[in-house]
Formats: sequence, C-alpha cells, structure tokens
Amino acid sequence: MSSFVFPARTTTAEVELGTNLQPKFGPDGLIPCITQDAATGEVLMFAFMNAESLALTLQTRKASYWSRSRNKLWVKGEESGNVQVVKDVFTDCDQDVILLKVEQTGSAGAACHNGYKSCFYRKVADGSANERASPKLAFVAKPLFDPATVYKKK
Amino acid sequence: MSSFVFPARTTTAEVELGTNLQPKFGPDGLIPCITQDAATGEVLMFAFMNAESLALTLQTRKASYWSRSRNKLWVKGEESGNVQVVKDVFTDCDQDVILLKVEQTGSAGAACHNGYKSCFYRKVADGSANERASPKLAFVAKPLFDPATVYKKK
Repeated sequence: MSSFVFPARTTTAEVELGTNLQPKFGPDGLIPCITQDAATGEVLMFAFMNAESLALTLQTRKASYWSRSRNKLWVKGEESGNVQVVKDVFTDCDQDVILLKVEQTGSAGAACHNGYKSCFYRKVADGSANERASPKLAFVAKPLFDPATVYKKK
Repeated sequence: MSSFVFPARTTTAEVELGTNLQPKFGPDGLIPCITQDAATGEVLMFAFMNAESLALTLQTRKASYWSRSRNKLWVKGEESGNVQVVKDVFTDCDQDVILLKVEQTGSAGAACHNGYKSCFYRKVADGSANERASPKLAFVAKPLFDPATVYKKK
C-alpha cells in the first residue's frame, strides 16, 4: 500500500473541472478530510489522510486516516469497533480536501473518542460571541458511550 | 481586530469537556474551518481562519476566513456578494477545528468560486476506486452562476 501514488496534478482547469482524482497533499504529505453521516449530513469528525490512508479508504471502503498524534495509519474503529463504512468520497474544487460520507457503525454509533456521535458536540453559546474576553461553549449532545470502557488502558 | 487573543489552552479535560472556547491555531496561526448549509447540512466549503477572522466571524456573524493564496483576511462574499450569514459556530473535541452553520446568501446561493453551490461537486465514480492507477471523478451538481461574470478581472 505504501507505494501508492496518485496522479500528478496538471493544470488548474484539469484539477478544478476535470474528472481525474488528483489530490493535493501538503508539505507534510497530508490532506484534510471531513467525515459526514451519509444519512443525516451531520459532520461527525475531521482528520487528516496521507496517500496511503486515502488509497486504503478507496479500496476497502473503511475510513482510514493518518494520526498525527500517534504518527501512524489509523483505520477508524480498529480499537473501538466504531468502523465507518464509506458510501461516497468527494473532493473539492481544488482537490485539496476530501469529504467522506459514511455509515457510522459500532454499538453506540458514535464517532468521537469522548463518546459523542459527532466530535462537534459544543457550539458557541448564544450571546457569548460578543464577550471578547472569553466566548463560552454550550453542549448540544450527550455522550453515547463511556470512553473509559471502550478505550482500555494497555 | 488584529489584537484579538483567544484564551490560552489549559488542560485536556478543560479543552475537551469544558465550556470555554480555547481554539488551537497551528504553527501557521491557522485553524481549519468546515462550512455547512444550516438548513440542509450540505458541506459548502472548507477553508482556514486565523484568530482575527474567527473573532470577526463571531462578532459580525458573517463568515470570514484567511486566504492562504492571497495571504489576507477574506470576508466571504466581499467580491462576489455571496455572503454567508452565520447561524452557529461549533468546535470539535480538541478545539482544533471550527464548524460554521450558515445561510448562503447571494443571487445564486452558491459558495464555490466555480459557480457551484458547494465546492464538493465531484465524487469518486462508482467502481473507479479499484482502478489504482487513476480513480475517476463524477460530477454531482451543475453550476448556479458563471464565474466569469461574477469575478471580473481587474
């Protein structure tokens, strides 16, 4: 897998309006990836991919990322069981972002390591944005699983 | 605005489960931002923000970003008229991503500079992912405006 090479990028017109996948990986070899619930449109998480994890995602239809904190390929759900089955893979106009539409599997159907369905479980509280010193967050969801029992210390 | 400083990040527990907005800007001073249609959930675009553009977005409720290609603050729609009215501002578990839910205004209601509602107007074509040499893209949308008439050459 590690030898996988995506096609080189050509012209702006080809990249933006063409039909060849020519993803742009940054200087660190990574491309941002947004992952959305295929059924509801809820944004579940955001992570990065390297070429290998993008290729693996395309071939296995299981969402795979590059973990910057662990510095390794990361098949989502390999530890928690919360695998993401990939329904569709989109890219944006300049092909420097990937968007996955997935079915979030697992007993709790949760994507976030803190037990929430989505990592985006907090929003800036109404009115708080004008408090320049310290905007406040409000929770918009409840956790679906207890992280302590899913991610066991080794 | 340029003097705006968000609170320093504290402990992991505070960042992940607390109620203070403590965004993490990368070494380049930027944080990734996903922008979603508030009504339909469609992901419209992906861009970056610096502290100033995040503060401006919170205070004006008009989506503002940092343009890496132009190296300047970018109020979305300042040239095209396709302003994004911000309904909600979310952050993720480790507060290193921003998610905006917006109403995409403008005559065409399109976010993409190529005239599409969303920048994600192409997906990997079914079956194509197994063609390792060159996955193909399929268009899933039609443009809503003609870029040549909206972004006039100066």
